[in-house]
This record gives sequence, structure tokens and C-alpha cells, in this order.
Amino acid sequence: MSNQNLFNPNTYSTATYRLFDDKADFAKKAEGIAVGLTVGSWTELPEVAKQKMEKHLGQVVSVDVHEPEGASPGERYADITVAYPDANFSRDLPALLVTTFGKLSMDGRIKLLDLSPSAEFLSAFSGPRFGIKGIRDRLGVHDRPLLMSIFKSVIGYDLPNLREQFLQQALGGVDLIKDDEILFENPLTPLEKRVEACIDAARQAERETGQKLIYYTNLTGPTSKLRENARRAIDAGANGLLFNVLSYGFDALAELANDSAINVPIAAHPALAGAYYPSPYHGIAASLLLGKLVRVAGADLSLFPSPYGSVVMPKEENLAIQAALMDKSLPLRETFPVPSAGIHPGLVPLILRDFGEQVVVNAGGGVHGHPQGAAAGGRAFRQAIDAVMAGRELADYAADHEELRLAIERWGVRNA
Amino acid sequence: MSNQNLFNPNTYSTATYRLFDDKADFAKKAEGIAVGLTVGSWTELPEVAKQKMEKHLGQVVSVDVHEPEGASPGERYADITVAYPDANFSRDLPALLVTTFGKLSMDGRIKLLDLSPSAEFLSAFSGPRFGIKGIRDRLGVHDRPLLMSIFKSVIGYDLPNLREQFLQQALGGVDLIKDDEILFENPLTPLEKRVEACIDAARQAERETGQKLIYYTNLTGPTSKLRENARRAIDAGANGLLFNVLSYGFDALAELANDSAINVPIAAHPALAGAYYPSPYHGIAASLLLGKLVRVAGADLSLFPSPYGSVVMPKEENLAIQAALMDKSLPLRETFPVPSAGIHPGLVPLILRDFGEQVVVNAGGGVHGHPQGAAAGGRAFRQAIDAVMAGRELADYAADHEELRLAIERWGVRNA
Ligand SMILES: [Mg+2]
Ligand SMILES: [Mg+2]
Repeated sequence: MSNQNLFNPNTYSTATYRLFDDKADFAKKAEGIAVGLTVGSWTELPEVAKQKMEKHLGQVVSVDVHEPEGASPGERYADITVAYPDANFSRDLPALLVTTFGKLSMDGRIKLLDLSPSAEFLSAFSGPRFGIKGIRDRLGVHDRPLLMSIFKSVIGYDLPNLREQFLQQALGGVDLIKDDEILFENPLTPLEKRVEACIDAARQAERETGQKLIYYTNLTGPTSKLRENARRAIDAGANGLLFNVLSYGFDALAELANDSAINVPIAAHPALAGAYYPSPYHGIAASLLLGKLVRVAGADLSLFPSPYGSVVMPKEENLAIQAALMDKSLPLRETFPVPSAGIHPGLVPLILRDFGEQVVVNAGGGVHGHPQGAAAGGRAFRQAIDAVMAGRELADYAADHEELRLAIERWGVRNA
Repeated sequence: MSNQNLFNPNTYSTATYRLFDDKADFAKKAEGIAVGLTVGSWTELPEVAKQKMEKHLGQVVSVDVHEPEGASPGERYADITVAYPDANFSRDLPALLVTTFGKLSMDGRIKLLDLSPSAEFLSAFSGPRFGIKGIRDRLGVHDRPLLMSIFKSVIGYDLPNLREQFLQQALGGVDLIKDDEILFENPLTPLEKRVEACIDAARQAERETGQKLIYYTNLTGPTSKLRENARRAIDAGANGLLFNVLSYGFDALAELANDSAINVPIAAHPALAGAYYPSPYHGIAASLLLGKLVRVAGADLSLFPSPYGSVVMPKEENLAIQAALMDKSLPLRETFPVPSAGIHPGLVPLILRDFGEQVVVNAGGGVHGHPQGAAAGGRAFRQAIDAVMAGRELADYAADHEELRLAIERWGVRNA
């Protein structure tokens, strides 16, 4: 059932839901949503009122019922798309989310699969300030996937320790280093001191490797101090920020990304995302949460659980996130996909096969756990990337690349 | 398995999780959480380092495995409580949530059931500025449940219409009137004009009813403008604010509640809450999300789906929210529970039996749908409340209370 010509896609934003119900009249349910979440009531309105209210009325775009023959209880569902007039809400993500999935999120077995903000709504967003190309330009690296690493342990460690961890990672040739998302303001490694120590280590490493590096410092604190803390970090030398977007809301990210005083790339961390996406029956799909919304809000990188490691997201969901982050139809810069967790050098062929070249290979244990230490761990990853880019087999390339050889000895190579 | 004497409850905050897994060694899993989300690694640390790191190490408090004999696949779970040293995170809710359930939320079938912030952590929060008693004092009503009503339709309607809707509700004797949560800044009913019109109607009604009233204006807009918008509303006469807390994050609410310039009660709306609480396997329990966290963040009222209507939450979950909002062991003012959706006068005996006197009876359709209109609808509710407070049967009391009689004719009386 389709009804696409009743609304103008430039001024209506659509939401797609999956509703599970063994008996519901889904078409009626869809009408109830389109009316209930907009003008409130419709059929009982006098004609004159209808004319005035029509521009505020939601429109059912499509209702696709999935009802396998002999369906067991719990299997029947419909994917429903409803168009909401932009006239009804302000140009911010809290307003869009509350309108389309505020009360509705509590109405039975329903999951928000996608949002397609209108051209007009999107015109209020500048999206990623740097995007994939901007980050590559900053690093001067255009011909291979990037490599990111994370600290081994941070809580309870002091500045010299953090600096040394940073230096070893940087010496291994990683492009991006990020704070742990659970590193908050603390007396041992306070924000500005930490930035100074790490950026100093980055300079020292650059003299050896000739390679630029971006350090994503964890931006934390009270909501009203985020801007000031970001500026403090940047003034101390930070050239990137990590942000736990879901704990502050998408609008906080959008405001940071749109702030010309915060002229460094932002990496969105998926902390708390598992409270939303894994259930088939409730919540918000990963491709929307960690894909489209994170991009519209302006993250230059989006981290999400890879399908390869211990904290796992199915590969289809990973690829759906990637598609949203790079979708050409959105008038915004692209966000770098960063599949994370459980990554070692032997997975690089798989990652590049699944994601292509526009990906950040992100590792923690796979760098620090290298038998020769973190610097060698970074080099092993870079060798793995070089091998794949040269069309070589890892095992073959490892024959004359010692760090890669040791990494493969430790973690093996996975081809599927 | 219990381990309660290893940590100081004044300086450790605990989190309780429910983990489903058919085979896992839950004790080992709990240890992995306690170490992985704090110091990162433990057993391999040298003794000297352990001494230095011990104050940052998480502690397993308890592991309760539920494994019914002959359990079917999917039924086996454990409730695990872990204590986190406050030394590891800053005194804000994003830090607490990211520490305890950031990465962990994505690690399989796991739901966050509860958080018990330490005394030290809580000392950074002032909680509800007014609370149940403060709201009652403002209204001068101490001897009965309060009555709240919501507008029928707001989108697309102009100021005279909104004012008239407000007036009719106020004339019916309601104590609290709230905006619809989907009413954003808009040209027809902009914030300050809307407040002026509604507060003017409140004064007009007060001259007739002699009754005070709080109007909860929807506080919306960019995160960085929330304080300014709240002040604008208050300067225009608003004596309450409605806030879609989950779309902005708990910290935004905490900052508003802690701001002495925002000296009006705040009602937290549960929009988007259904993305978190309904799944048994993922997300955040309703009692934590709409109970404890909303209270710690400082909401004076917490709205949640009642167990009576169409948008339904099980009654046990409602009562668990209520318990968290009113738990005497928390050193914070109490938050008013507001079970919402599907409420009509015939449900009042049930609501008061379930919730007691410290409850806000909240209705929309049950006020506006009264055969004699919204003012009569409010009166029917007040009569129902009076009847229950006087220990009378509704049907009996309705014999000489016309509005209640008509309401019962329309919606009936539900006793269970
Ligand atoms: Mg981490
Ligand atoms: Mg509403």
C-alpha cells in the first residue's frame, strides 16, 4: 500500500517503523499514528477546520504487512512509513525524535527503523565539519584505510604512563589515537595536562615516523560546559574530540559540530547504544542510531561494534550503518565508519573486503597485545593494510614482515 | 554469591544487571565486568601496581543465577551487582551511565536493572527543587491526589483556541495543566505568547474556582538555549515546565533543576522511553529510567504509561517506578508519580488503591471527551477523587453528582 504523492518530500520528514502484532489492522494503525502524532483528531473535524489543518496532518506513505503462511504467534509484523509535516516541529533532533517516536515508542512492539528528514529540515544541519575527506586531508593519507588505536588501560594511570602508551602507539604508525570513553576528568590525568602530554608524544613520534596523527580526547563534563571543555582541550593542542553522544543527546553533538570555534574532527562513541538497537521489537535500529543520526548530528567518525570480535553486531547491521554514513543522497559530508572491538591484524583482509577502503581499522588489544609491544603492534596492522592494498596474501606478505608474522602467529588470519 | 564488605558504599556506586546466557560462567563474567570497566586488567599486574590500582578496581557484589530445572534455551539468567569506585568518574549522570552501561550495553543479552549511586556521588545532586510537598504547598492542596489535564489538540491551533482549551480545563478544577510534548516553537503559538494566554486563562478561572493552578509549558529548542528559553517562559508567567528529558539526556535536566534562576517545578515527559525499557533482554529498566534517574536529575513530576489504558506498562513496573520516586533512603525530595494514558474518572478508585494519595491523576481524552465538555470532565474527575477520599463507591456518589454520573455512563467503572 503506497501513498507517495500526497506529500512534498522537501517539507515532510518520514519515519519507518516495524510493528509486531498478531492481529492488528496495520493500515488502521498507520492512520492512527499519522493523525495521533500530528493534529490529534481528523475524521470528526468540520470541513473548514480540515482545510486549515491539512498542512499539519501526517500522511501514511506505505504499509507492508509481513505475514508468512502459518505464521507462529509473534511473527506477524508490518513496516509502516509515515510522513510528518516539518511545519509541526522545530529544526532540531530532539524535536524530530519526540515527534516521530516519543509517545509511540511506548505503544507495544514497535521499533524505529529509519528517519528521512526532509531537505528543509536537513538544511538546518551542517553535518560533519571534516568528514572522510577532511580527515584524510589533515593526515595527508588518501590511498589506504586509516588505522586507529586506543589506550590499553587509563584509569588509575598517571601522565607519564599515558604519554608512554601514546608514544608507543604513535611509533607504530597509527593515524588516529583515541582516549578510552570511560576516562573522565580526574586528578591523575586532567584534560589539559593529558592533551599536552599526548600531543608532545605525537610530535616526538612524528619526528621519527614523518607521520601526522590525530588524538581524539574524550570530551566530558556537564552539558553546559562541553563547549568550554572542548575549547580548553583544543587550546592545549587537541586535534580531535571523542564524544559519548548518546549520554548527552544528539543535539549536544549537533551544537558542537556546528560551532566554528570547535574546529577539530569529532568521533562519536557508541556507549549506551546497546540500550537501543539489539531488540527486534523495541528501540532504534543501529543504522539510524549510529549511522544516519550520528552523521546528521555532525560526527566525523562513528564507532560501532564490529561483526568480528567478542562484542558483536551482525554484519548486515554493520553494513547498513556504513551505508547510512556514506549515503550520497544526503547533502552532508561522509562520516568514517569505525567497526571496533576484537580487531587484530589477521582480520584486515576481511574488514577491507567488507568495508572497502573508506574505513578506519580500530584496535586496542590487537595493538597492545603484540608479542613485541604496541609499536610493533601498530606496524603489524600497517603491514597488513599494505599487503591487502597490494593484493597480496597476508601469510605471504608476512614472510618478510616480522611484526605481521608475529601477529599472525598470535591471532591467526580469518578469511570469513 | 555475595561480597559486600569489600567496598565502602559512600564512595562506590553499584549497578545491577540482568544477563541472559544459556552457558556462561556468570561469576567469571561478573569479574570481567568489574575489571574490564575499571582498571582494564588485573591478574597480570605486578603486586606493586595492584596496591596502587586497588582503589580503582570494581568489585563484584553479588551474582544470583536463575536456572530453573529443565530450563528451555533462553531462560537462564543471572542478576549481577558490581560496585564501581567513584574515583573513576565525574559527578554527572553521563559519566555514571557510560561507566556502568556504556560498552557493556552492547555485550549480549544484558539489561541495566538498577543503579545505586554512592552518597558521595549523590551529594553533587540537589534533586527535585520542589518535590511532592513543594508542589502541594504551591497549590495549597494537601489532602487529596492532584489532577492534571492535557490539551486535546495543539498542533495547527492558534492562541485563542489554546486559551479556550486551557480555560475550560481550568474551570473544571484541575490542579495542573501540561502542554503536549509534541508542541514545539511555532508561529501560531510561540512560547511567550502561549504562556501569557494560558496564564491569563488560569487567572480568569481562579477568580471563578478560587483554585491555584500550575501550567507546565513544554521547554524545547537547542540544548544551549534551554536555560534561556526556560527563563523566557518564566518571565512570561510560566509556573511549571515540561521537559522531554530523554531526548536531551539526564544531565540537561539536572542542570535545569539545579539552576536557581529556574524556580518552577519541572515535569519529566517519558517520550522515547519505550526505546529503552520494554525488552527483558536489553535496555534500561523503567524503574531506573523513569524512577530513580529522573528523580536524581531533579524532576518534580515523572510521567509514565499507566497500566490502565491503551499505551500500557505492567502494574509491577508502575509500582517499581513509584517506589523509586518516593524511596525514603534517597536524600532527595520525592518526585510525584504521574501514571498517564487512557485515564477516565471510572479508574480513579483503582489508581488510588494502587498508588495511594501521593499521585497525580492525569487525563486527556478522559477530560475532553466528557459529554458536557472539558470543564465538566475536570469536575467529574474531582468528584471521583472526592468520592474515593470519602470512602464512597463511585456509582453511589454519582447519584447526586451529574458530571461523574455522565462520565461513568460513558466510560464505566473499573475495579481491577
Ligand atoms: Mg573503551
Ligand atoms: Mg501527548
